[in-house]
Amino acid sequence: MIDKLIDRIQKTGAPIVVGLDPTMKFVPDHIKKTAFAEKGETLEGAAEAIWLFNKAIIDSTYDLIPAVKPQIAMYEQFGIPGLVTFKKTIDYCKEKGLVVIGDIKRGDIGSTSAAYAAGHLGKTQVGDSLCSGFDEDFVTVNPYLGSDGVQPFIDVCREEKKGIFILVKTSNPSSGEFQDRILQTGVQAGAAGNDAGGITFSDRPLYEVVGEKVAEWGEQLVGKKGYSYIGAVVGATYPEQGKILRRVMRKAFILVPGYGTQGGTGKDLVHFFDENRLGAIVNSSRGIIAAYQNEKYSKFGSLGFADAARQAVVDMITDIDQALAGTGR
Amino acid sequence: MIDKLIDRIQKTGAPIVVGLDPTMKFVPDHIKKTAFAEKGETLEGAAEAIWLFNKAIIDSTYDLIPAVKPQIAMYEQFGIPGLVTFKKTIDYCKEKGLVVIGDIKRGDIGSTSAAYAAGHLGKTQVGDSLCSGFDEDFVTVNPYLGSDGVQPFIDVCREEKKGIFILVKTSNPSSGEFQDRILQTGVQAGAAGNDAGGITFSDRPLYEVVGEKVAEWGEQLVGKKGYSYIGAVVGATYPEQGKILRRVMRKAFILVPGYGTQGGTGKDLVHFFDENRLGAIVNSSRGIIAAYQNEKYSKFGSLGFADAARQAVVDMITDIDQALAGTGR
Repeated sequence: MIDKLIDRIQKTGAPIVVGLDPTMKFVPDHIKKTAFAEKGETLEGAAEAIWLFNKAIIDSTYDLIPAVKPQIAMYEQFGIPGLVTFKKTIDYCKEKGLVVIGDIKRGDIGSTSAAYAAGHLGKTQVGDSLCSGFDEDFVTVNPYLGSDGVQPFIDVCREEKKGIFILVKTSNPSSGEFQDRILQTGVQAGAAGNDAGGITFSDRPLYEVVGEKVAEWGEQLVGKKGYSYIGAVVGATYPEQGKILRRVMRKAFILVPGYGTQGGTGKDLVHFFDENRLGAIVNSSRGIIAAYQNEKYSKFGSLGFADAARQAVVDMITDIDQALAGTGR
Repeated sequence: MIDKLIDRIQKTGAPIVVGLDPTMKFVPDHIKKTAFAEKGETLEGAAEAIWLFNKAIIDSTYDLIPAVKPQIAMYEQFGIPGLVTFKKTIDYCKEKGLVVIGDIKRGDIGSTSAAYAAGHLGKTQVGDSLCSGFDEDFVTVNPYLGSDGVQPFIDVCREEKKGIFILVKTSNPSSGEFQDRILQTGVQAGAAGNDAGGITFSDRPLYEVVGEKVAEWGEQLVGKKGYSYIGAVVGATYPEQGKILRRVMRKAFILVPGYGTQGGTGKDLVHFFDENRLGAIVNSSRGIIAAYQNEKYSKFGSLGFADAARQAVVDMITDIDQALAGTGR
């Protein structure tokens, strides 16, 4: 699946992913009206509104982009009906040929992670049948529980030729509270050191140690194009850390959230990429799906929300292209 | 809700929670047969089997226990039908007067955590209506993203008088890989130090720093019985760490997984409790719901699985009672 993702990135020339993270305030009134008329101001009505919204955004952008990243929380907030829309969105995106990254940030003890991995990437045994739960192509994984919480995802990736992105350095303002803590010299030191950014083997922040584990976990599952099935999440809002992590995890594809509304810009992103413009895929959610609410795209109006999203995709591709060109890539 | 939980613990004399973490291999054949006959060897069939299994376990144990802890991964693995059973299980347990701890281990950037918090503990706005998604009483939360990923859960706890348990030191074998790393002297040092267990302010493991944040986050939401709405998860498999953390987080109720099948015993648990036998609630999942598969309870047979679960609950209460009595509590 990492090879398919890279292939689509090369064909579209767009190392970007559209975050399908809808909230009711992004959904235009005319869509809410239609959905509520049919299903009421209920969880079912909200789920229907979000489905109609997603479908229009997908129809308007799928030919420009390699992948989408639905954030499951935005569906889970509407309970079962919301999750039905999450599943419909996955299936529809796959029909359109898109790679689907389920942003689920799951992670638990071994046997429980195995259930998540089966439900989202693999298959679950029911009697003599094998059944698929959600069937994304990639999911995001939280590493706080350590190797035995990550391994079941890796096992399913091997079996199903799918992939994961492990949280290393997240895009949010307080991500440093634990992730940036400097670990004491020599205490349970990891396998490989590095000297990037003036940081030596003996004093590395937690995110770097997690990055080293990502590199280690990914070593055995490298695809045909040189990148591993096991990738990482590193926020666009932390370009310096991205530069270090790009060197620590040479074979890890980096999923980069935080572009646009969260503050990351094209020039912040260049160090996440390798010399062939690969190695990273940049997510934008609100900046694309709610573009029509942005002054810059106001001419589209709320009826033109899907066209505004398309224009925002085009502009994002240009922004990243220019930033990479500026570094000779 | 923390007050209700404590009240129920005192009334039942049972500081325990039954983990409703069913897998198909725990479900007796006669139940699978009934469910598959009706719905086939499908996700729907599996979800029906698990619902019938859960209902029998709940009916057989609810009068002895204060709370249940369904692990959402075990339902999510069966996709939408599995999550329908998760929701039915929550609703049924609440009808029976049980406190429901959703073991969801969610955690994300602020706006996304807000969606999880609304979906699992609070309400989501749909038009002019407020709708509940899953409506558990407590959920578990992953702290890797820091304060802004936890705060939305705290906000909803305040509003809805509900609670969370934050992962501090998990029960699994590799939990130490990141959680036990010793942080360097004085780097972004937390608010409060402590000298428990010979560890000084200047060299503390990550789990202790997370524990200090739990204490800090919980300070403003303390219930009538002296414990905070904001609790912690600390594995029974790490009693020494439990002893330290009990002192670091004096007002945090501790949810203790890892008893039984994972290796924790009654005597490992005593330091998690305060002098009034409060402050901790111990989870057992497989040890109770799959007791009939254990040699010790084999006389019940698979038809008597629910009675075996009841006997395992009685035995667990006795084990913890004796361990606490042995320390004069």
